[in-house]
Amino acid sequence: MKTVKGFASATVGNVACGFDVLGFAITEPGDEVILTLSDRAHTDSPVSISAITGDGGALPLDPKKNTSSFVVLKFLEYIRAHKQIDFTGHISLELRKHLPLSSGMGSSAASAAAALIAANELMGLPCSKMELVHFAIEGERVACGSAHADNAAPAILGNFVLIRSYTPLDLITIPSPEHLYCSLVHPHTELRTAYARSVLPQEISLKTATQQWGNVGALVTGLLTSDYDLIGRSLVDVIAEPKRAPLIPGFFEVKQAALDSGALGCSIAGSGPSIFAFSSSEKTALAVGNAMKEAFLHSKAHLQSDMWVSPICKEGARIL
Amino acid sequence: MKTVKGFASATVGNVACGFDVLGFAITEPGDEVILTLSDRAHTDSPVSISAITGDGGALPLDPKKNTSSFVVLKFLEYIRAHKQIDFTGHISLELRKHLPLSSGMGSSAASAAAALIAANELMGLPCSKMELVHFAIEGERVACGSAHADNAAPAILGNFVLIRSYTPLDLITIPSPEHLYCSLVHPHTELRTAYARSVLPQEISLKTATQQWGNVGALVTGLLTSDYDLIGRSLVDVIAEPKRAPLIPGFFEVKQAALDSGALGCSIAGSGPSIFAFSSSEKTALAVGNAMKEAFLHSKAHLQSDMWVSPICKEGARIL
Repeated sequence: MKTVKGFASATVGNVACGFDVLGFAITEPGDEVILTLSDRAHTDSPVSISAITGDGGALPLDPKKNTSSFVVLKFLEYIRAHKQIDFTGHISLELRKHLPLSSGMGSSAASAAAALIAANELMGLPCSKMELVHFAIEGERVACGSAHADNAAPAILGNFVLIRSYTPLDLITIPSPEHLYCSLVHPHTELRTAYARSVLPQEISLKTATQQWGNVGALVTGLLTSDYDLIGRSLVDVIAEPKRAPLIPGFFEVKQAALDSGALGCSIAGSGPSIFAFSSSEKTALAVGNAMKEAFLHSKAHLQSDMWVSPICKEGARIL
Repeated sequence: MKTVKGFASATVGNVACGFDVLGFAITEPGDEVILTLSDRAHTDSPVSISAITGDGGALPLDPKKNTSSFVVLKFLEYIRAHKQIDFTGHISLELRKHLPLSSGMGSSAASAAAALIAANELMGLPCSKMELVHFAIEGERVACGSAHADNAAPAILGNFVLIRSYTPLDLITIPSPEHLYCSLVHPHTELRTAYARSVLPQEISLKTATQQWGNVGALVTGLLTSDYDLIGRSLVDVIAEPKRAPLIPGFFEVKQAALDSGALGCSIAGSGPSIFAFSSSEKTALAVGNAMKEAFLHSKAHLQSDMWVSPICKEGARIL
């Protein structure tokens, strides 16, 4: 019997202009996955789920359908085929969810990343973190039907991660400016990723697209040169935000409150309903987060919300 | 009588994925503009054109229609309105063109930039280079009907210039990696900017657009971190190049020749017909340029061409 506890934190994908190509990790909150290895082979599956807490009973216990166990199964298949590790024992998985589901905070990616970092440790570190990202992305397909990487990659790798290409997968890690803080506010309402995706146009004008990639280039420049003002000016999304904002009650009031409180910029986290803002100090980020929380409460929908203030996570998924 | 000679070099706009948002300047070739100031006021216009050489008689001599004189007129209007400099004398302008017209090498922008840097010197440097960029962009409207900045801005400022936004104009200068060299090949054929623009789609798929901005983010990262391999991987244009390549006889052979000779990447310069390639040493860039020139010659169209190898220009327009 050997037990390992993995941890991976919340991530924000679709970072404004960086729709589908840019995500980042914060330091908290995060999901924990406890894996217990036994030599005794199980009859039906090498991985079983012993317990899930914090999900309100929403997540499946079938190891092939639950994201965190599914990615461990994929990982085991891979190390059998490519690392000459023929695992014949059994892994019991306990998932402790601290991230809300369908929140835009990379909940499924955090569970997958925590499970993978623990499984890799359990097996003697056969894979690099970059290899683990592939399984975490496969987990996203199980969780939400689309194998996107903008949560999965930063959940494993930390920092900002830019997805240059999916075929082949080409991920570029961008370190965060030292004083960049994220205020993340999760209103108590759900917005399904599939629905949030369905409101997006299939076609966009070349002119609009050009605006978006001008901002992507500028945002990356701002991050790499610690130009906080430029980061703020570049946090513009002319594609997804205009379509998705109406799906989030109070979005415009919350964004305005963030900017009025000194945020560099503010946009939808992932496909929502959570909203993130960047600030150039922890103190400002705290004021910004509180103002956003207040704005949700005083908007027409009177939404309660949870709020976190965090720097960008440098290390990604880790063993606790 | 006071005489000043300004110089500005060729520039490449639409840098692969950076369609309409990214341009850079090379060190040669360039256009020269000689301005001669006299106190005697002219009856009809404060600026007249005394001579143009190197254009084969193609450029207008009317100071309101010629880009180089037009931008000087705009500059004089601006310093009258905003710098309290009421110029009552006369400027005689001589334009020495060394850049081919309609070549994709930023010919009009070079003439405008050379004229502006000289005019600013002549008037005692009332404007910053960033202010001068505005007039150079206005010059592009006169030259080709579209006030684009991706040649005008690097012609004045040097380096790579990213255009985050036009309204308001937000330009970000990105210095070049030390060992980045450009091979620029101009085949002896013309391609009108307006025609090259007419073949572009008005609408593009969101999926394609996302690929493009992933590459923009990665290219900027490569430039800022001197990651030559990443620069090469990111020099991908899934929007304009597929539509414009067929307008340039021999494009595919020339691009393949560049890549086979060790270029990091290769794409259309501006709207063509010139083609540029990046290499990570001067020696490779020379071999690449020669291979591209050969490929044009041996393609079906048997095109003669001119070729330049140059590092990225750091200083932009300057006084000679």
